[in-house]
Amino acid sequence: MKAARIVKPKESLQVQELETPKPKGSQVLVKVHSSGVCHSDIHLWEGGYEGPHGLFLKTTDRGVKYPLTPGHEIAGTIDSLGEQAEAFSKNDKVLVYPWIGEGLCPACRVGDENLCDKPRSLGVYAEGGYAEYVLVPSYKYLVKIDEGMDMDAAATLSCSALTAYGAVKNANLKPDDNVVIVGAGGLGLMAMQLAKAVTGARIIAMDIGDDKLKAAKEDGGADDVVNSKKEDPVKAIMELTDKLGADAVIDFVNASKTVEADMQFLRRRASVVLVGLFGGELKLSLVSMPTRAYRLIGSYTGSLNDMVELVSLAKRGVIKPVVSERFKLNQATEALSKLKDGKIAGRGVINP
Amino acid sequence: MKAARIVKPKESLQVQELETPKPKGSQVLVKVHSSGVCHSDIHLWEGGYEGPHGLFLKTTDRGVKYPLTPGHEIAGTIDSLGEQAEAFSKNDKVLVYPWIGEGLCPACRVGDENLCDKPRSLGVYAEGGYAEYVLVPSYKYLVKIDEGMDMDAAATLSCSALTAYGAVKNANLKPDDNVVIVGAGGLGLMAMQLAKAVTGARIIAMDIGDDKLKAAKEDGGADDVVNSKKEDPVKAIMELTDKLGADAVIDFVNASKTVEADMQFLRRRASVVLVGLFGGELKLSLVSMPTRAYRLIGSYTGSLNDMVELVSLAKRGVIKPVVSERFKLNQATEALSKLKDGKIAGRGVINP
Amino acid sequence: MKAARIVKPKESLQVQELETPKPKGSQVLVKVHSSGVCHSDIHLWEGGYEGPHGLFLKTTDRGVKYPLTPGHEIAGTIDSLGEQAEAFSKNDKVLVYPWIGEGLCPACRVGDENLCDKPRSLGVYAEGGYAEYVLVPSYKYLVKIDEGMDMDAAATLSCSALTAYGAVKNANLKPDDNVVIVGAGGLGLMAMQLAKAVTGARIIAMDIGDDKLKAAKEDGGADDVVNSKKEDPVKAIMELTDKLGADAVIDFVNASKTVEADMQFLRRRASVVLVGLFGGELKLSLVSMPTRAYRLIGSYTGSLNDMVELVSLAKRGVIKPVVSERFKLNQATEALSKLKDGKIAGRGVINP
Amino acid sequence: MKAARIVKPKESLQVQELETPKPKGSQVLVKVHSSGVCHSDIHLWEGGYEGPHGLFLKTTDRGVKYPLTPGHEIAGTIDSLGEQAEAFSKNDKVLVYPWIGEGLCPACRVGDENLCDKPRSLGVYAEGGYAEYVLVPSYKYLVKIDEGMDMDAAATLSCSALTAYGAVKNANLKPDDNVVIVGAGGLGLMAMQLAKAVTGARIIAMDIGDDKLKAAKEDGGADDVVNSKKEDPVKAIMELTDKLGADAVIDFVNASKTVEADMQFLRRRASVVLVGLFGGELKLSLVSMPTRAYRLIGSYTGSLNDMVELVSLAKRGVIKPVVSERFKLNQATEALSKLKDGKIAGRGVINP
Repeated sequence: MKAARIVKPKESLQVQELETPKPKGSQVLVKVHSSGVCHSDIHLWEGGYEGPHGLFLKTTDRGVKYPLTPGHEIAGTIDSLGEQAEAFSKNDKVLVYPWIGEGLCPACRVGDENLCDKPRSLGVYAEGGYAEYVLVPSYKYLVKIDEGMDMDAAATLSCSALTAYGAVKNANLKPDDNVVIVGAGGLGLMAMQLAKAVTGARIIAMDIGDDKLKAAKEDGGADDVVNSKKEDPVKAIMELTDKLGADAVIDFVNASKTVEADMQFLRRRASVVLVGLFGGELKLSLVSMPTRAYRLIGSYTGSLNDMVELVSLAKRGVIKPVVSERFKLNQATEALSKLKDGKIAGRGVINP
Repeated sequence: MKAARIVKPKESLQVQELETPKPKGSQVLVKVHSSGVCHSDIHLWEGGYEGPHGLFLKTTDRGVKYPLTPGHEIAGTIDSLGEQAEAFSKNDKVLVYPWIGEGLCPACRVGDENLCDKPRSLGVYAEGGYAEYVLVPSYKYLVKIDEGMDMDAAATLSCSALTAYGAVKNANLKPDDNVVIVGAGGLGLMAMQLAKAVTGARIIAMDIGDDKLKAAKEDGGADDVVNSKKEDPVKAIMELTDKLGADAVIDFVNASKTVEADMQFLRRRASVVLVGLFGGELKLSLVSMPTRAYRLIGSYTGSLNDMVELVSLAKRGVIKPVVSERFKLNQATEALSKLKDGKIAGRGVINP
Repeated sequence: MKAARIVKPKESLQVQELETPKPKGSQVLVKVHSSGVCHSDIHLWEGGYEGPHGLFLKTTDRGVKYPLTPGHEIAGTIDSLGEQAEAFSKNDKVLVYPWIGEGLCPACRVGDENLCDKPRSLGVYAEGGYAEYVLVPSYKYLVKIDEGMDMDAAATLSCSALTAYGAVKNANLKPDDNVVIVGAGGLGLMAMQLAKAVTGARIIAMDIGDDKLKAAKEDGGADDVVNSKKEDPVKAIMELTDKLGADAVIDFVNASKTVEADMQFLRRRASVVLVGLFGGELKLSLVSMPTRAYRLIGSYTGSLNDMVELVSLAKRGVIKPVVSERFKLNQATEALSKLKDGKIAGRGVINP
Repeated sequence: MKAARIVKPKESLQVQELETPKPKGSQVLVKVHSSGVCHSDIHLWEGGYEGPHGLFLKTTDRGVKYPLTPGHEIAGTIDSLGEQAEAFSKNDKVLVYPWIGEGLCPACRVGDENLCDKPRSLGVYAEGGYAEYVLVPSYKYLVKIDEGMDMDAAATLSCSALTAYGAVKNANLKPDDNVVIVGAGGLGLMAMQLAKAVTGARIIAMDIGDDKLKAAKEDGGADDVVNSKKEDPVKAIMELTDKLGADAVIDFVNASKTVEADMQFLRRRASVVLVGLFGGELKLSLVSMPTRAYRLIGSYTGSLNDMVELVSLAKRGVIKPVVSERFKLNQATEALSKLKDGKIAGRGVINP
């Protein structure tokens, strides 16, 4: 089979010919139809993240090994099943849950494999979906998708929408809350749709691009928008909330600059959900944490159960994932470059 | 009536003669028997806290007004009731809930008045218990205490034990969790007793004093102890937890140095509950928040309902609050000075 | 002031001239603009409910005293305030929270006064809103409503919508749940709107009237409907749920016949939320409770905080309470009779 | 290998010679050291349960197939592993989680396999532990137990203690709750120990045997006891709770008679957790459910994560499972008969 792989960080991906895996035990081989292109793939490609004190946090220190086939947003059809795999048949259309854990830690035991102590995520720690086939460790990580469902759009449910959903859940929103969603890109828009669908909160979108804020209103259902480049974000939020401040913030950028601003427009008891992987550091006032009863919550993707809920919502049209651009396997480097340069609105998908 | 008041920050408290209040409406006048001396009284006395970037956060900026009668850990007997006050009678022994809110914000509406947007806490924003009498805004803030219960010990339930309890609840401990409790003073010891009584977690006490760690084992029920002055705290916790790291930390110091260490021995998904008012800042790595799924939780005292639960636990001997030293009203300055200098083990109480 | 009162169960209500109360302490006198007419008023009028074994459960055994001014869905303007009442001013438009508790039980302490051990609900245990004025025990039970909001519609938020909301919350719905809502009258329709707004669940409405089921689809947003008079409800639900059964049922009738049917179409782990006051008994198979892991949950109105959330949702148009008929004070008996005979679609309101 | 099997309901168990299974894929073969004898094995042996209206609920209607090797409380050592099984090695001492699900339903996805739509529990739907070896579908269902831990006692953690723990969790106890535990046999005693260890609630034990109530005080840590044969249970509970009634009941008998009594001594908002499989029916007053806000909660065993927590508690001596009698494989019928006749205090265990 063909796979587009990161052989060495920062170099162009290579399309290599690999042996097609044979599923054993509970394993299932999925023929990839769609593999989403995600910002976190760029970090794999660059070999790391920006940490505090100007440090660079290397992916290899977190257990990533190269060469690696990236791709964790995978939809496809079942090719073949191991002898203990059940419940699915050849040619079934499936969405793959990629945030697989070792299965033995407290997170795994309650179905939060995305938070496993020793993760084995597809496209990160194991071979992913920038390939013709992907080997899934168990049929339990597959979710059937309807015949009528667009597979490119479905693929984005397993990370883009899932990360948005996990963040919305972590924000624990109630109908009279004012929530600020920072970053109105693909994840931010999906978070708005989800907050609209499953909480009754009032949504304030914040971004530095007017076109994105327009989409926030039209596609995301934001009640209000703030352009933090043109307006003072603190003043704007205080005005929109009758000087109360935000009950919750979901920050899809999570850079020093955005979080520093976030901390200035919080109501007492506010939760700040940190999602983005931009990096940098925050100088946090320690005494304000107890006196103001703030919560800073790191949010990382979502559970298999969350993904099933997303499939249900998408099937009934409650949320509408958007795919804007499609690439071939040999365009993987181009896809990542375009994404890095901010030239993909919505989500790019590779069709091997 | 006589009251020991902070007339001006940093100056000795003055015992003043004030008019004894007359309860109206739902108000109740309580004759003070015991008023605990708390670390936060020192911040009121000093006029503020150490903030980030070397800033000093002034209490007057948070709405405190001088002269002020401090004292929020109040037990006493009912002197007289307003015409709409009910359920209690003259001479009833009561514990006073001091963390009173305005009553109209989302926190107040669910009984978390301690987290009110516009707090009216006794001894902070309203006249407190370093006095012969204290005026309580409603009979609903009173909890009857048994004839047999020591009133000095009971008084400490409304802040010292309540803060410990709120922190233990915020840590959301489970029986197979390893929790590190940083600071084995009065609050830390009570947190250990409470974690022992209502969670099944394994408790690791951390402090820089061997005598305190001895008490942690004997009185707090700690399973293990770490002297972070003599041992490397990170190495010690990793060894005690089979290299997994702590599932939760409750930090009763909450200084730059302790929290910086906390962040180094966390298991993925860990909660760090920040309680102490020592102050300073933390340089927080933003990208670690989502990837490690950490939670930083500010914890501030507890609710009236929490206090009722503490009274129930203390009555049955499940927890044992300790009062080590008693002062008269004219010794208020001395009491605060001794506390500041670390010369009160357990809790000091003023008996007006 | 004039008040329409139940002097004796089953007799016509009398419009009596009573002394207008004067607010003291934290009390507030509200001039009633709208007072909703509720099914539970009929039980007060009839003097009781149908219990198990053919017993009649008398309201007087539950502490109700006659003569009584009913009316617990009250919107109006502030007339005057006691000396300790604050935050509101004369002529403010307000919605009244009627489910007032004694303030000292565990439910009251966490803001669930509707579940108080010793309730003092307006229009049930204390004089209610079928009158020109109503005396509210504290300003804390008032919620400001916007100038633009219809007061008749607002009034219904304090019981009709609140009961629906409490039930939806107790059902604990998730986006891939199938919930059956039994009874598509006023409460059922509002429950559908709310389930649509704050959960992502798929809603199946069940009723015996095709016109009500039509409204369920059009106004309630139900995904599917079942006429349980024309179809076998068990067969219908099994077909609609791929033979899985319902994840949750909210039963606004709560009669022997409806609940017996409910118990036949449940998925393992299902919750059955019992709301209606129709009465009768259920022969419950005890061994099925553990083996099937069912939950039967009694749901009674909602909290003040829930009501604030409803006001927020109604203000933004997320839910749309409907008032279909208006009466004068001297038409109170007529209003109750029409409601009893099923001749009021939506909600009737008295404008004193 | 030898296995003691129920060939036909109500007939003596037969020790048969079966082929020893060979583990494939993720499967693990465990050499059984201890297999607990449980009340639910009696129902398998008798072929059913007593249902409502005098009906007999047959186990075969719930999917049980005979001949069947019972035994779901299994501790042993690892004999051999399938090629994809990991994390464990030959001779490791392990406790087996028997409440295995299909893996695809909402319960399984969050780790509650005990509540699966299509359960595959060992010793119920699949071959169990009354045998020399048991085949476990995946290494993920194994939990290592310490060298020093008694294997007979450990075995009882997977059902006896787990069912008690699941029930205690479902009761959602708080430190000022009064909980009545009905049935002071093995499960009841363990529930008392657990309620003592992880809640702060006041425990009232209820039984008809004075010896059991003595054990409830001495071994279970009950605060108070009621002999419901000698005293009127309703009057007794009302006296013990200052006429408030019980905040929660955990009923390990769950027969018509016990639950009818339970329903008479409940405080408003009370939860009744139904655990026992005695059977029969309850005539439930429907209107009382909403007005009194009661909750009836069926509780069935517990999750794998719960079992891990129990192992942690037992290891540290917080709970003390008791095994009172040991049998050989050919004594299986005798063991079940003695249990049925109430002649085993504590727990019986088969050592194949």
